[in-house]
Amino acid sequence: MKNYLAEMFGTFVLVFIGCGSAVIAGGDVGFLGIAFAFGIAVLAMVYAIGPVSGCHINPAITVAMLLAGKINTKDAIGYIIFQIIGGILGAGVLYLIASGLVNYDIAINGLGQNGYGIGSPNGYDMQSAFIAEVVLTAIFLLVIFGVTHKDSNTKFAGIAIGLALTMIHIVGIPITGTSVNPARSIGPALFVQAEAISQLWLFIIAPILGGVLGALIWKIIKPVG
Amino acid sequence: MKNYLAEMFGTFVLVFIGCGSAVIAGGDVGFLGIAFAFGIAVLAMVYAIGPVSGCHINPAITVAMLLAGKINTKDAIGYIIFQIIGGILGAGVLYLIASGLVNYDIAINGLGQNGYGIGSPNGYDMQSAFIAEVVLTAIFLLVIFGVTHKDSNTKFAGIAIGLALTMIHIVGIPITGTSVNPARSIGPALFVQAEAISQLWLFIIAPILGGVLGALIWKIIKPVG
Amino acid sequence: MKNYLAEMFGTFVLVFIGCGSAVIAGGDVGFLGIAFAFGIAVLAMVYAIGPVSGCHINPAITVAMLLAGKINTKDAIGYIIFQIIGGILGAGVLYLIASGLVNYDIAINGLGQNGYGIGSPNGYDMQSAFIAEVVLTAIFLLVIFGVTHKDSNTKFAGIAIGLALTMIHIVGIPITGTSVNPARSIGPALFVQAEAISQLWLFIIAPILGGVLGALIWKIIKPVG
Amino acid sequence: MKNYLAEMFGTFVLVFIGCGSAVIAGGDVGFLGIAFAFGIAVLAMVYAIGPVSGCHINPAITVAMLLAGKINTKDAIGYIIFQIIGGILGAGVLYLIASGLVNYDIAINGLGQNGYGIGSPNGYDMQSAFIAEVVLTAIFLLVIFGVTHKDSNTKFAGIAIGLALTMIHIVGIPITGTSVNPARSIGPALFVQAEAISQLWLFIIAPILGGVLGALIWKIIKPVG
Repeated sequence: MKNYLAEMFGTFVLVFIGCGSAVIAGGDVGFLGIAFAFGIAVLAMVYAIGPVSGCHINPAITVAMLLAGKINTKDAIGYIIFQIIGGILGAGVLYLIASGLVNYDIAINGLGQNGYGIGSPNGYDMQSAFIAEVVLTAIFLLVIFGVTHKDSNTKFAGIAIGLALTMIHIVGIPITGTSVNPARSIGPALFVQAEAISQLWLFIIAPILGGVLGALIWKIIKPVG
Repeated sequence: MKNYLAEMFGTFVLVFIGCGSAVIAGGDVGFLGIAFAFGIAVLAMVYAIGPVSGCHINPAITVAMLLAGKINTKDAIGYIIFQIIGGILGAGVLYLIASGLVNYDIAINGLGQNGYGIGSPNGYDMQSAFIAEVVLTAIFLLVIFGVTHKDSNTKFAGIAIGLALTMIHIVGIPITGTSVNPARSIGPALFVQAEAISQLWLFIIAPILGGVLGALIWKIIKPVG
Repeated sequence: MKNYLAEMFGTFVLVFIGCGSAVIAGGDVGFLGIAFAFGIAVLAMVYAIGPVSGCHINPAITVAMLLAGKINTKDAIGYIIFQIIGGILGAGVLYLIASGLVNYDIAINGLGQNGYGIGSPNGYDMQSAFIAEVVLTAIFLLVIFGVTHKDSNTKFAGIAIGLALTMIHIVGIPITGTSVNPARSIGPALFVQAEAISQLWLFIIAPILGGVLGALIWKIIKPVG
Repeated sequence: MKNYLAEMFGTFVLVFIGCGSAVIAGGDVGFLGIAFAFGIAVLAMVYAIGPVSGCHINPAITVAMLLAGKINTKDAIGYIIFQIIGGILGAGVLYLIASGLVNYDIAINGLGQNGYGIGSPNGYDMQSAFIAEVVLTAIFLLVIFGVTHKDSNTKFAGIAIGLALTMIHIVGIPITGTSVNPARSIGPALFVQAEAISQLWLFIIAPILGGVLGALIWKIIKPVG
């Protein structure tokens, strides 16, 4: 149960800090600042809760790990449920704080939700969004599998995985706001409603497909044994 | 006594560099640059004075460590006194340098002080400021307890804790300027006076409450033994 | 064969993320954001595929390693071929995604290609471009040889090499867009055509010369034994 | 002799990359980008040439190390001479490349030189410049002595020292362009002439005083034994 709760708190931090950087500070720190906020949130959580739960804090990672035989089905389901709860809590506390600004309007300023087409920050269409989320999640999982392999410098996993999420956000924010993580998308969407809900399917399916693709690529190139 | 002095010099560096980045370079490097300055100051101090004092340089951390039984009451009081002295000295030297600019006016340009309402950089009210400081400090302590636990890669503590402070600043600067550290707030406030003094209570109480909350969350999820 | 494929995927990631940051996010994150994207891509790949192939993902590195006797001729050829394929694939997927933006025009927006004169981001001439690419690649190889030497903290290689590529991009982007890597230049050039092709010779010759220069400098100062 | 040459190449890289980021990319990456370029240059050099020479690449560090009995007088003199030569070479190659821009004029655009008063980027007077250079160099040496002490995580020295230089630049660039290193100031000054030469004394004396101050502070708080 400790590990489920760790996943919940970890996903809370990821969503609160990542989406918080967009909603509260986006106009000040730009997309680069948001990318660092998301990446550092994962870096910090890997070192803080990694020993407790492995720090997935992302259903796409949990599904890929299930496929790779590194987590059992029961725990995978528990992880995903608590990740989603953590994401909702993170979005909720963020909404509470954001509302303290007189001119904040969730329908206009959003809550760091993901989107494509009219929901895309820079106007990318659904096909680009889908390909980008698949490819970026595959890259994310390639880094995760690679750096946590026993032949690697696994102690550096937090730095490599966290900063990888930063580079993924640098490329992906203009396209979709960058999900690569269904739990990160579900939380804000529940509060924002509208397109954030109707487009949510893409940010569940594409990251999971990308995670599976990353697992397959790693299977091809991973060291024997 | 070496450890008390280390806490004093460490807090001096945190306030001089962090608030210095805001006062001297804020217009050039933006909130993202300020966030990196604060975070790197902690990263560098953890590696430099960590072996001497544990590098708290923050009364909220010292109180949380006291609660967790990792420091005794006498040392906790000594730490906090010297942290506050260090913060005042850091703000003082910063004021000395800032005054070398012809058009510097502390009443207008400030000294990197924290605030809410009319003292908030982007106009957040007291309730948002209070919640933000509690939640952000809780996240900070969760990272600190997690990465310094014996099952963790404790050598990476400086990187995880320092960069965590950067992400916390990215989210918190628009709201309060980000305190999460009473000593960091007291130093500048004594020079700036006005609201910085009348609002100081929040930046003493909220970070300490947040530190306690972080300690409780860690107690729930920490590995046994 | 695993190592060749690792080089292909690694170079794919470098070009997709690095050039992707320029094409998709350049207007948002600026040259600094692009520099971090390229550098972090290498940092992440060193930790992810380093144990598989050594993570060259750059023909200039492979040639320098061949010269230093750290790879045999057959593998060097295999590495370079798969690096070029990876770079082309990375540019191709990037083009696919970029095309999802209504007002994207490869002839105007480019694909993160390198150039000098009319192809230089800030208008630097051919001589400056050539010197810059030689010197920057020599610095890159000096870092690579230094940090991977047995007397060094080789586990930090990914951080040192990755961030070195970031600093190299900070200086080089205004001059040429920064290549220091023929495979990174070939991929986008094949799609962009025009000057990107006619100027490609410089981004093959100069980085390789720079790599050789870096190997010679390291030979002079490297620890005995 | 290898160590002297390593100091020369290391200082070349620091000046070429650091000042290069200001001259070539300053308008694009801002003071934050310049601060990262300087800091990463030191981070990379510590890991690359640290095992050869200890990577001082700064006369203020060499003088402080001499005072602390960690280098003998003969080597200290050799180090400083080769550091100055490296700084001049770095500024020279930078000048060669910068001249490839049609509208580059060293009298207007400079070469990343340091200054105060009319030479200060944001107009700080001589007294502020002097205090800032002393305090910032003292902080730099405190980090260097702390992280290289045998009780510390010395393998992280490159990260702590390099990023400390970044935070020091964030605060110091608006005041003096940040020296904290006489060799870094001498190189550009010889090419720029004018105030860069007449103000050079401050950037030799203040960093050395600061280095001595840092050594004294460390002596007070360093662990026994």
